[in-house]
Amino acid sequence: MTRAVPNLLVNGLPAGALPADDRGLRYGDGVFETIKIGEGAPEFWARHLRRLKLGGERLGIEVPADATLAKEAGALLRGSGEGVLRIWLTRGSGGDGYRPPAAARPTRILRLDPFPTQPEAARAQGVAIRLAETRLGQNPALAGIKHLNRLEQVLAAKEATEPDIAEALMLDRAGHVIEGTRTNVFFVIEGVLTTPDLSEAGVAGILREVVLEEAAHAGYRIAIRPVEPAEAHRAQECFLTNSLIHLWPVRRFAETSYDIGAVTRELARRIAARVPGERGLPALPM
Amino acid sequence: MTRAVPNLLVNGLPAGALPADDRGLRYGDGVFETIKIGEGAPEFWARHLRRLKLGGERLGIEVPADATLAKEAGALLRGSGEGVLRIWLTRGSGGDGYRPPAAARPTRILRLDPFPTQPEAARAQGVAIRLAETRLGQNPALAGIKHLNRLEQVLAAKEATEPDIAEALMLDRAGHVIEGTRTNVFFVIEGVLTTPDLSEAGVAGILREVVLEEAAHAGYRIAIRPVEPAEAHRAQECFLTNSLIHLWPVRRFAETSYDIGAVTRELARRIAARVPGERGLPALPM
Repeated sequence: MTRAVPNLLVNGLPAGALPADDRGLRYGDGVFETIKIGEGAPEFWARHLRRLKLGGERLGIEVPADATLAKEAGALLRGSGEGVLRIWLTRGSGGDGYRPPAAARPTRILRLDPFPTQPEAARAQGVAIRLAETRLGQNPALAGIKHLNRLEQVLAAKEATEPDIAEALMLDRAGHVIEGTRTNVFFVIEGVLTTPDLSEAGVAGILREVVLEEAAHAGYRIAIRPVEPAEAHRAQECFLTNSLIHLWPVRRFAETSYDIGAVTRELARRIAARVPGERGLPALPM
Repeated sequence: MTRAVPNLLVNGLPAGALPADDRGLRYGDGVFETIKIGEGAPEFWARHLRRLKLGGERLGIEVPADATLAKEAGALLRGSGEGVLRIWLTRGSGGDGYRPPAAARPTRILRLDPFPTQPEAARAQGVAIRLAETRLGQNPALAGIKHLNRLEQVLAAKEATEPDIAEALMLDRAGHVIEGTRTNVFFVIEGVLTTPDLSEAGVAGILREVVLEEAAHAGYRIAIRPVEPAEAHRAQECFLTNSLIHLWPVRRFAETSYDIGAVTRELARRIAARVPGERGLPALPM
């Protein structure tokens, strides 16, 4: 990225602003995607669009055509190398208070930002994490999708912390480990690759999905289930995933230390091998 | 209100738009107030500002000076009679993802809208309500304040319903009655004025506060505690409150019918008598 100014399209038009009565602002009434741009092209584009669609269906918000989003993403990406493309989709304006308008006209916002600075050593040497004090409320109607109600993550991210802590794990109100503030979490517990069930809380990340696929290909035993904090502490391996970092091994969680084990290494290798094949925008009709 | 176009101030400037990267949109990172304008002046202004401040403190967002908000509200209200004034306060732009910027510059939005059409008979004759299917997640860090993460209310308000149903009561995940989608709820249960405890979920409404004060003045027995749905159904009286409706008696909740009883009538009378004394903006220094 050499452009200093982020590039933005609101409903396809270059603009820096949106209506102040947008329901995205009023109620967090929408969903978003955070997409890594590598070598000038989005990673896992089809998967991000699939999740955006799932979120739109869950909230009853009409999702723009794939071709529209691909065309607009393509316009923003011209000339860029590395970066982050974000897509926000809100229900737009109007309605009778909380009740959505009968014929809503959704707002779509695409924005390209420079790739954020990340600790260089994180991927190779692993990171230290803590437990967040802020917990996640439980709501199956909202669990899994990447909606715009993210105050719990904001509160967890702003808790006081030491500078070398890369992420905070969040528990739900029932006391189960769910995820990091911006990552999903995996453990290897007695030989089983284990990641929290997200039917009550959490965001089902794209890289989480890819890791689970690769783990299945590798023939690992897999468990998606509620995880107790005590289990996290007695796990043999631990790692974090999201679309920007891909996979970070965890070396320390509060008082617990982990080695970067064979399963973590193998999955990191498989993801790195997988990315080039899932990079790019679909060809657009002329 | 004779003006067709809503009046809007963003950080004090007449404008119809806000930056697309405002954290209010990205994360619902902010709070709001909905204030009734009657006879050209806001009702319960000081109380609304107190709650806005409480929300700002809880989220760590700096709240504008009272005089700033009063001046801007005054500018919007010139010439209007009835209406609704909304104040949004967001953390503004910036930050490292969820983590807020060290020196955030909050965004304030004030908007004046026409007073919404309400069922004429609701106040005198009461309304019918239903139980929402969507439940409220529990989070003490967010309970009570009027923050911008309102997807649960949006989902509850868009559930299919009969046209004569005025409101939906929401349970939390533990199964307790908390509030309506846009109202607080009160019951008279065996002679005790009872309203749900909001330490885990819900918005502590301004009119709820006023009703509790008036109930204390009237010498009623009061309970603020978890309320089971079965208790709601065997209550002798039930009513709803918010800043725009003030107080609506409930005549029917699903299969249960209530009379408009003596407690409901007395509190409605007391609120009506209270409003004129709590209407108006503070005098501004010249």
